[in-house]
Amino acid sequence: MAEMDFWYEFGSTYSYPAAMRIERLAGDAGVALRWRPFLLGPIFKAYGWNDSPFNIFAAKGRYMWRDLERICAAEGVALALPPVRCPQNGLKAARLALIGERDGWTPAFSRAVFAANYAEQKDISDDATLRTILAALGVDTDAAFAAANTPETKEALKLQTEEAASRGVFGAPSFIVGDELFWGNDRLEAALSWALSA
Amino acid sequence: MAEMDFWYEFGSTYSYPAAMRIERLAGDAGVALRWRPFLLGPIFKAYGWNDSPFNIFAAKGRYMWRDLERICAAEGVALALPPVRCPQNGLKAARLALIGERDGWTPAFSRAVFAANYAEQKDISDDATLRTILAALGVDTDAAFAAANTPETKEALKLQTEEAASRGVFGAPSFIVGDELFWGNDRLEAALSWALSA
Repeated sequence: MAEMDFWYEFGSTYSYPAAMRIERLAGDAGVALRWRPFLLGPIFKAYGWNDSPFNIFAAKGRYMWRDLERICAAEGVALALPPVRCPQNGLKAARLALIGERDGWTPAFSRAVFAANYAEQKDISDDATLRTILAALGVDTDAAFAAANTPETKEALKLQTEEAASRGVFGAPSFIVGDELFWGNDRLEAALSWALSA
Repeated sequence: MAEMDFWYEFGSTYSYPAAMRIERLAGDAGVALRWRPFLLGPIFKAYGWNDSPFNIFAAKGRYMWRDLERICAAEGVALALPPVRCPQNGLKAARLALIGERDGWTPAFSRAVFAANYAEQKDISDDATLRTILAALGVDTDAAFAAANTPETKEALKLQTEEAASRGVFGAPSFIVGDELFWGNDRLEAALSWALSA
């Protein structure tokens, strides 16, 4: 079966529509997905950025929100600006997403975190937000949080982020098929076509 | 008739496939196009960049060339890296493109300059390259060069670039319908749909 890695970051605006539609599109295409959460912060730091480029470059930031509005409207995906400064800190959510891989709840958890961030105006760095999401998925929240906070999980997320950078990822969402990199929600269809023809 | 402004820069890689396909798509859609050459340099300078972001951010630059290869292959547009350092200096070509507006040769001239840059491996800052293009279009090359080098034309290009920035343009290609901005070759279809529904 054709395979594709979906690299995403919970604080990345364009990762949101990608996360909401990727399962449907990959399912229709018959492409197996691997959800790979990572952190953009360390990658941006290497560029000399201590913040999102959408905050550093104001015109780009203004455009991004308008573009995202149009995309979400076209996709029928809800959008409401988060109540806290963007990008939200997705560190805890990313560690939890790694924990979900074993039991298979990473995709549903990730979608719920994105919806909390970009549609439900919740603070995704707040444990209560994440616990509510986990509980709704029937996950043992205490066990998940304990596992997410081990040194091994912290190290695993670091390694995952390093792997992203070493594979050429410089933004999110990114899709990788073999060694072929596609960047941006707007490249999802092209990435799936590539996976089918590869 | 629906109208759209096409903002482009001769040194911008993604402006190339946009320039090569926009007339066909706009024609099919019944949208009147206005070709608006401008310079990205002054806009990037305001970001603190003295070079293309594709040179400053290496991973992004590597990705861009691969992405452009895929796009040009899918569109059936030739692509060969220019013989000089990218981005090429499009200042002279942009001034000439302004001159062509009166006699209507701006679109054909612009496509030929893009092809010279990205398919024919020519130096587009070389007068000889530009003269050959103009001559092939039946333009009086001496008159065009003389008009392009007047203080009025130099000022007109400055004003055009300032207008781009004031309308929110931060990269190329950009498409503007009314006050609605679309950025990137991959937003051309969305911009045309917007023009038709506006």
